[in-house]
Amino acid sequence: MKQQKMLIPTLREVPSDAEVASHKLMLRAGLIRQLASGVYSYLPLGYKVLKKVEAIVREEMDKSGAQEILTSAIQPAELWKKSGRWDAYGPELMRLQDRHQRDFVLGPTHEEVFTSLMRDEVNSYKKLPVNLYQIQTKYRDERRPRFGVIRAREFIMKDAYSFDTNTDGLDESYKAMYDAYHRIFTRCQLNYRAVEADAGTIGGHGGTHEFMALSEIGEDTIVHCSACGFAANIEKAEVIDLNSGTDTATNANVEPVELVETPNVKTVKEVAEYLGIEAGKVIKTLLYKVDDDIVAVLLSGDDELNEIKLKNLFDAELIELLSDEQVESITGDKPGYVGPINLIDKIKIVADNKIQYADNAVCGANKVDYHYKQVNYPRDFAVEKFADLRNIKEGEPCPKCQAAVSFSQGIEVGHVFKLGTKYSEAMGAKYLDENGSSQLMVMGCYGIGVSRTVAAIVEQHSDENGIVWPKEVAPFQVHVIPVNVKNDKQRELATLIYEQLLAKGIEVLYDDRQERAGVKFKDADLIGIPIRVVVGAKADEGIVELKLRTTGASRDVSIDDIISDILAEL
Amino acid sequence: MKQQKMLIPTLREVPSDAEVASHKLMLRAGLIRQLASGVYSYLPLGYKVLKKVEAIVREEMDKSGAQEILTSAIQPAELWKKSGRWDAYGPELMRLQDRHQRDFVLGPTHEEVFTSLMRDEVNSYKKLPVNLYQIQTKYRDERRPRFGVIRAREFIMKDAYSFDTNTDGLDESYKAMYDAYHRIFTRCQLNYRAVEADAGTIGGHGGTHEFMALSEIGEDTIVHCSACGFAANIEKAEVIDLNSGTDTATNANVEPVELVETPNVKTVKEVAEYLGIEAGKVIKTLLYKVDDDIVAVLLSGDDELNEIKLKNLFDAELIELLSDEQVESITGDKPGYVGPINLIDKIKIVADNKIQYADNAVCGANKVDYHYKQVNYPRDFAVEKFADLRNIKEGEPCPKCQAAVSFSQGIEVGHVFKLGTKYSEAMGAKYLDENGSSQLMVMGCYGIGVSRTVAAIVEQHSDENGIVWPKEVAPFQVHVIPVNVKNDKQRELATLIYEQLLAKGIEVLYDDRQERAGVKFKDADLIGIPIRVVVGAKADEGIVELKLRTTGASRDVSIDDIISDILAEL
Repeated sequence: MKQQKMLIPTLREVPSDAEVASHKLMLRAGLIRQLASGVYSYLPLGYKVLKKVEAIVREEMDKSGAQEILTSAIQPAELWKKSGRWDAYGPELMRLQDRHQRDFVLGPTHEEVFTSLMRDEVNSYKKLPVNLYQIQTKYRDERRPRFGVIRAREFIMKDAYSFDTNTDGLDESYKAMYDAYHRIFTRCQLNYRAVEADAGTIGGHGGTHEFMALSEIGEDTIVHCSACGFAANIEKAEVIDLNSGTDTATNANVEPVELVETPNVKTVKEVAEYLGIEAGKVIKTLLYKVDDDIVAVLLSGDDELNEIKLKNLFDAELIELLSDEQVESITGDKPGYVGPINLIDKIKIVADNKIQYADNAVCGANKVDYHYKQVNYPRDFAVEKFADLRNIKEGEPCPKCQAAVSFSQGIEVGHVFKLGTKYSEAMGAKYLDENGSSQLMVMGCYGIGVSRTVAAIVEQHSDENGIVWPKEVAPFQVHVIPVNVKNDKQRELATLIYEQLLAKGIEVLYDDRQERAGVKFKDADLIGIPIRVVVGAKADEGIVELKLRTTGASRDVSIDDIISDILAEL
Repeated sequence: MKQQKMLIPTLREVPSDAEVASHKLMLRAGLIRQLASGVYSYLPLGYKVLKKVEAIVREEMDKSGAQEILTSAIQPAELWKKSGRWDAYGPELMRLQDRHQRDFVLGPTHEEVFTSLMRDEVNSYKKLPVNLYQIQTKYRDERRPRFGVIRAREFIMKDAYSFDTNTDGLDESYKAMYDAYHRIFTRCQLNYRAVEADAGTIGGHGGTHEFMALSEIGEDTIVHCSACGFAANIEKAEVIDLNSGTDTATNANVEPVELVETPNVKTVKEVAEYLGIEAGKVIKTLLYKVDDDIVAVLLSGDDELNEIKLKNLFDAELIELLSDEQVESITGDKPGYVGPINLIDKIKIVADNKIQYADNAVCGANKVDYHYKQVNYPRDFAVEKFADLRNIKEGEPCPKCQAAVSFSQGIEVGHVFKLGTKYSEAMGAKYLDENGSSQLMVMGCYGIGVSRTVAAIVEQHSDENGIVWPKEVAPFQVHVIPVNVKNDKQRELATLIYEQLLAKGIEVLYDDRQERAGVKFKDADLIGIPIRVVVGAKADEGIVELKLRTTGASRDVSIDDIISDILAEL
């Protein structure tokens, strides 16, 4: 492809609205352009990369035995009502009506569509297992689209759904996908990790894994243990209750509760500073709406609530922190001064395990500008249930082997999930077994964020000058650059190399632009094609420069050897 | 691929809601399933064919120098407001709001998106011409989706937009697309014709062609002339006014107008029968809303109005036949009795050319149950403008050479169109020319209905037993069928052939099902894979049957020759 007329609108300036490297570079290298918030166009270079990633995904999915289909983005609301997600999904679900005022959604995923397809078309164990996938456009009306195509509202996803006769079959289908995902992300040259993830209350048959591209900008925190290899999303990582078995009724130094004035002192930090204590000595009381109930959650002041654990504790569909106004209307107290003492009369109280060892702690007094000191459990307050409700911290014991865990950040590029019979039950997807009796299909679902994977690759493969594409996903393999296209010798030699490479079926970009050498090289660095051939001053001697984008290493090569040298590098 | 677990839900019964062969066969062969009216899922076999057609389109587009990109289906309303199509498009445009109540459309085409992209990214003549295309999902909320994927609401389209510095450049870009389309539809083995089409009032630079797959079920009528090769959509085909120049003031046998009672006689047919005259002697008066005006259109009773010609005559955005209620409220007359005499005082009147030769004709008397006889132009009524407003009829003179034209029906599978500067002007897409002055880009647009093309292929390539796929788009090239998989020899031989073909990179479907031979053969005919290898009773002798789906011809082949014979057939 010749560069002069190709739409590669590179930018020298760093776009002001781009926060992370991949977003900046994808804009600067002319891979993408934003059309609306969270909605992007893939320009020629960007789409070439996207197609390469798609091809890798397709090859490995096919190799695993999955069958490719294509369903619609638009889905009738009836399907979503049947599964219950029409009501449960919330504002991320894009909805629309057709000309007859019938409700539709733009699919964020396709469980309903695939399950109802299988319900209608397959009815015998003889036709199972089946794993169906598609590479298709998805919609999620993100509250805050960001990081370019990493969190977009329209994006490309590979989603697959497996249908088995039983859970052993599901385990096999799941394993095949798990292995395929490893092959896919390895081929994409991602530094990634498969981590245990939260399966909510439906993944009862052995869970779920997320595939995380490691990156500082990742929105997910990965907890891992170098001793035993444990790796999990922090949402999922269990906190071991090391004090389990301690007799909480015999806390030492138990002093009487004392009411202290704490004017305008509300947050844990303010309370700890004002009273001169550790944050860990403060009991935080958070009020949550858990489906239709109100629940108070007690946590140590230096801990973070893990909302997923709270949600799972109640097997809830939806949990939501109460607003200040809601807190006041329910407790009659100002937020910041709510505490557990006498609260159980009004509201259900649950607490993180740590709270049962509360020993001369501080908590809100349910009275503006006052806190209690010397608060002890169980002497001073009641709790309905203790559970692991907080996030693990770096250095705390690994839930598997108790060695100290470390943290990394990750971008979720893939997710494999054992659904079990949740959707086959809702949609009525059954088959007849060997004995002719009707059974529910056992399902798994498997997603890859294809467009997000492209961004994750850029995030991991770049330097200060631009993108450094891994070969298998590079938009072109070779970039041929005559330094001065007006120089006949340079132009002729470059054209010759370009045509010879094309004849060998190699993807070449030929910089035929009448631009200064500096502009060409800067663009070449930015675009990041793996192998660069520069035809410059030594063209007269039949010498060109071969440069690798990865290392920056360059060497002079005779025109007689250049094609074979390039082939060797590839 | 092994057939046992592949999702190919063939049907013996003809689906009751399918009217045309392609729709029936695509359902019966398990290529597609309907999810909602006009919304389909492509199952494994169907999607394989769709991808083959996509690949042909992509190869020929790339060969023409076009650059592939991918834009979003969702488009902000602002773009459509800027082009004026937000208001002009009507109920076919699917609209939705995001969580912030911002308006979006689901794109039926992408002129606005591509034009604004080029406006923002290209500003110099040096970067032009550019032709950008995408293969992408489109949305049209059809009033009456039908014929399966032929008229669907979500469908796959290839759309391309060319940007040139001037009309000569546009002519070249247009020609490149016109030629590419010929290559594409030839490779798809379609019997098609490129026909002149209506360019409305914007295609001022030499028009537009539609590529029509010939088919009885086609919704478009093609007018063609075997003498000179002329071919046009009937919308576009001009009717020559052979009487042009006749002195209309001197009609012979002019008798006085006579009012006759015609009780309950309204339609042209009823009037002609009641009065014992030819339908051609009746003047039809149709009332249309043309943008904001009301217009009466006069036509000979045996002619059909060509709405496109009417629309173009007024350079209108929208024309619409008035409802009976509207006719009555405007004219004060019952529909069926409206006529041109004295009507021009109330309403603008235009007439087809033929009407100026009206000679003792009959027309509505603007009075219920009455018509006028012996009506003559210009003696009895006034007309503001005569024009070619009717459809040509089979056997009438070719507008190019005056030989008799014939009709065919066609399915529109492609459309190439010279847009000129309509969108570049609306969206402000300009470039700087050699002299540094700002010029509008000159555009063309080029569409192919990719999913519709698949249906058109099926429509043309089938027999009473099923689909007969052309090789280049067939989902598999070879279908290997052991008659009885429980017979060790048959199974082993079939498996050997299957694996040898796979090793040669040939796409093979292996019918490993334990089904009766009759079921297998019926399915094979239905699915329509070009080459069939049947491994049956002669397996013991090392003989298999090779059968071609096209001709049905079959022959015995030794196992030693089967692979080379298959390769020869391919």
